[in-house]
Amino acid sequence: MKPTAILLLHCPDQQGIITELTKFITDNQGNIVYLDQYVDRQDGMFFMRIEWELDSFLIPREKIKEYIDTLYSQRYNMVCNLYFNEVRPRMAIFVSKMSHCLYDLLARYNAGEWNVDIPCIISNHESLRYVAEQFDIPFHVWSINKDHSNKDEVEQAEIELLRKEKVTFIVLARYMQIISEKMINEYPNHIINIHHSFLPAFIGAKPYHQAWERGVKIIGATSHYVTTELDAGPIIEQDVVRITHKDTPESLMLKGRDLEKIVLSRAVTKHIERKVLTYKNKTIIFS
Amino acid sequence: MKPTAILLLHCPDQQGIITELTKFITDNQGNIVYLDQYVDRQDGMFFMRIEWELDSFLIPREKIKEYIDTLYSQRYNMVCNLYFNEVRPRMAIFVSKMSHCLYDLLARYNAGEWNVDIPCIISNHESLRYVAEQFDIPFHVWSINKDHSNKDEVEQAEIELLRKEKVTFIVLARYMQIISEKMINEYPNHIINIHHSFLPAFIGAKPYHQAWERGVKIIGATSHYVTTELDAGPIIEQDVVRITHKDTPESLMLKGRDLEKIVLSRAVTKHIERKVLTYKNKTIIFS
Amino acid sequence: MKPTAILLLHCPDQQGIITELTKFITDNQGNIVYLDQYVDRQDGMFFMRIEWELDSFLIPREKIKEYIDTLYSQRYNMVCNLYFNEVRPRMAIFVSKMSHCLYDLLARYNAGEWNVDIPCIISNHESLRYVAEQFDIPFHVWSINKDHSNKDEVEQAEIELLRKEKVTFIVLARYMQIISEKMINEYPNHIINIHHSFLPAFIGAKPYHQAWERGVKIIGATSHYVTTELDAGPIIEQDVVRITHKDTPESLMLKGRDLEKIVLSRAVTKHIERKVLTYKNKTIIFS
Amino acid sequence: MKPTAILLLHCPDQQGIITELTKFITDNQGNIVYLDQYVDRQDGMFFMRIEWELDSFLIPREKIKEYIDTLYSQRYNMVCNLYFNEVRPRMAIFVSKMSHCLYDLLARYNAGEWNVDIPCIISNHESLRYVAEQFDIPFHVWSINKDHSNKDEVEQAEIELLRKEKVTFIVLARYMQIISEKMINEYPNHIINIHHSFLPAFIGAKPYHQAWERGVKIIGATSHYVTTELDAGPIIEQDVVRITHKDTPESLMLKGRDLEKIVLSRAVTKHIERKVLTYKNKTIIFS
Repeated sequence: MKPTAILLLHCPDQQGIITELTKFITDNQGNIVYLDQYVDRQDGMFFMRIEWELDSFLIPREKIKEYIDTLYSQRYNMVCNLYFNEVRPRMAIFVSKMSHCLYDLLARYNAGEWNVDIPCIISNHESLRYVAEQFDIPFHVWSINKDHSNKDEVEQAEIELLRKEKVTFIVLARYMQIISEKMINEYPNHIINIHHSFLPAFIGAKPYHQAWERGVKIIGATSHYVTTELDAGPIIEQDVVRITHKDTPESLMLKGRDLEKIVLSRAVTKHIERKVLTYKNKTIIFS
Repeated sequence: MKPTAILLLHCPDQQGIITELTKFITDNQGNIVYLDQYVDRQDGMFFMRIEWELDSFLIPREKIKEYIDTLYSQRYNMVCNLYFNEVRPRMAIFVSKMSHCLYDLLARYNAGEWNVDIPCIISNHESLRYVAEQFDIPFHVWSINKDHSNKDEVEQAEIELLRKEKVTFIVLARYMQIISEKMINEYPNHIINIHHSFLPAFIGAKPYHQAWERGVKIIGATSHYVTTELDAGPIIEQDVVRITHKDTPESLMLKGRDLEKIVLSRAVTKHIERKVLTYKNKTIIFS
Repeated sequence: MKPTAILLLHCPDQQGIITELTKFITDNQGNIVYLDQYVDRQDGMFFMRIEWELDSFLIPREKIKEYIDTLYSQRYNMVCNLYFNEVRPRMAIFVSKMSHCLYDLLARYNAGEWNVDIPCIISNHESLRYVAEQFDIPFHVWSINKDHSNKDEVEQAEIELLRKEKVTFIVLARYMQIISEKMINEYPNHIINIHHSFLPAFIGAKPYHQAWERGVKIIGATSHYVTTELDAGPIIEQDVVRITHKDTPESLMLKGRDLEKIVLSRAVTKHIERKVLTYKNKTIIFS
Repeated sequence: MKPTAILLLHCPDQQGIITELTKFITDNQGNIVYLDQYVDRQDGMFFMRIEWELDSFLIPREKIKEYIDTLYSQRYNMVCNLYFNEVRPRMAIFVSKMSHCLYDLLARYNAGEWNVDIPCIISNHESLRYVAEQFDIPFHVWSINKDHSNKDEVEQAEIELLRKEKVTFIVLARYMQIISEKMINEYPNHIINIHHSFLPAFIGAKPYHQAWERGVKIIGATSHYVTTELDAGPIIEQDVVRITHKDTPESLMLKGRDLEKIVLSRAVTKHIERKVLTYKNKTIIFS
């Protein structure tokens, strides 16, 4: 894997940006290996992901962001983020009692499918400790009182652990607790949740029961970044499966699990690959 | 096409129903060509569709319903409907300005895909008269005042026409007026609508704009029987298509049209084939 | 889980079978909890799956098959199989080097999703021993010489182990060796394979490369029972995912893995639930 | 609709192309409204579609291609095509006896969905003349002898008509005759066919029967450019629908028609929008 730099940016659409930025890279001996851009004409916003090889690049890594900001960010009123593929994101997984998403994430991790580190798994129950042990990953339990009285305390301890482990993003793998504003602000647009319905249908609890009641012929799962409004954050990925009158809430839960695993993992993949850009509560997913 | 009788029924689940009803048919020289049944264990309700050839059947057509009611309906507390495949349903189509669903319905009708008659098309605009003329079907226009002041009058006239034409069910093919309770009671669970979203998401107006705003990655269409609660009746069929951040409300409308046509026509097919049974605001779709 | 008996049968279509068989069960105090049947009119063949509770059933388990054979099998020229839900199928998994299908099967097994026992995992490589150890399942390795000279020997040893462990069916989870006729005859229509293409397209080796070469816009995976003709046995389940020109053979392999897991597990589910009936190289999948 | 120019090109991947071409356009006061590019790393080929508004563009339309060729085509060894959105493609439709695809194409055309002209419909049967008359489009019939003895003659007459009508591309809407090499060379990668299977499965005749025989659980339809090898040309679009053991070849044909319409029309849409680039028997579909 050759070392690359990845620039994700957005700004008001203006003539010449693509030319300028590609020129900047190629003039400095960077070999562009990825370019995808999009203009939202409704809003007049320009979005781009550009990736280039660093082996011959003239500007040292620690200076690249500075150069880009100085030369372009102000001029174009650009918001941009720079990543290096060699710097692996560090993912913490939060789980409760259901194992299917956790197994799917860890199986891919073990198979080397993802360029990521998983320093810890956090839970509000002991139930899934054995899974973490199967994969040799530290498992931390903080149970939350029925009246939620210790919730702040627990979150504080969790945040401290996440900081200590230099976790860069969180995956809620059917984690059944609501994330507080404090945690969300610690990781804005960096907490990926899987909701077991096709949002915005069936928000909140027991979505399979809700779906069964409504008599839909299709159920879905949605992965999204967590925001302070429940199940309302920017959607990253969704998928569906057909059902019939023969399905019960239980069979929906079983069918739904396959969806949840796949949809969550696809979202995590895009995040790890730095192919998600969030804007106005929606996502641009670079292909 | 051999003449058949079709019995659609539901009742509390009890032992022996299948045996009794199949025996009734075969003892009377009926050749069973279709049997599908389902028990909803949550509610303890039994649903069945059974179809048999009439050529050797001993009981005359006009007496079959009577025999079934006398021998079984009371005993099993059965609600049942009897149809004959030779008696073609008569479908009225309601349209406003969009032609895509109308064309799809009429193309299938013309190709002999459906065992149905289409005596009339009703609209609140003149716009699509030319389509009706292409297919030689009477086109009736009743425009509705902006303040809806003549709505009752219009509906009365429509109901009179529908009765005169012996219409047995109605298809709203992107008809943009809300159907009144009076019309719904004239055709309970016999008005099929296509709603251009994946219900229960995006109820009401401009669902594609709503979908675009929410940033979903999938849009859908839903056909359902119309009830007094808007977009809340029993769902017959749904389907979806994937979208991306590159889609605008306009492109969603275009993609959505393909879905609307297919989903509406699938629902109409099942209805014409007498394969839809409605119970508690949901549908059993026999395969 | 109440004890039930499951009867899967097929025979030439004749009047009265459904009545007779349902009557047999209900007359003997069996409570029918599942009935699905299908008539293939092209071939005039009748297929049925019927399941009933045994708690009050008058005929002792060890005699049920005998009674059915005596009273009905000959009369109707029926081929039938009787199962009891309490008798768990015993599944052996064969793997080579890829872990994704294996993890998916074992995660479901661990979560209690399947009414099955997994007494052993067999492989031609040591690579995946660690996965078996994570799940505490005996892992047996028989490597096969490059020239396949020890293949018969290996298979004989494998068959002995399978018999010793009373394995009732085999799942090939991306197992890369061709199964010999001997093994197939030991487990006719009881070896489930996952082929990483949408059969009958791209039979044999490197189907993702073949798909990429052809420039298809959709790839698929297929699970089927293994027969002596490669990739030609009765298909149990298939599914697809969309791809674009941007996909490389590598990205196809990654996308394909998700399909392979889901398609294989769906097939295994249907097999375990006794909902697959094989006839003339095709399957009837009861819903 | 503002006038635009559309450039579709491919060449060996080299540094600086994107910069150069975007600079060329913006330096000459062109406002870029669309840019999508792709590098096939396996082959080292670069593909791009770029569209810009012409209202302020300094180079007159009739000179643009010349400038691009002079300044860039040789230097970069580029193959490129230039289009203007104001120049509507002219589409001829070939039909035999099935009406569903024809209706779908004409319904969209009538609804103004496509920026295209349809000067004529050609057929080997009289059957669908009534449809052409419904839409006021000239319908030309050339029937072909059972022994195909007049095939060359017929094709010659057809080519003359197509030239006279300045037809720029052909759509075979379930046209059942094989297109000769002569016609293909007249319209290389400009004849869109719909094949009623999921290629490369079930090439040739009666694909639905073949699919039914194989017992697949999914059927598909494929639209592709016609080449001299039957059903083997570059695939533009495909889609699928699930089927079960209950489907007969007849029901497959009915389900298949919905697919055929949608898949064919999607391909035609991409072609009209100048979003298809063909290379090495595959297509790049710009989004």
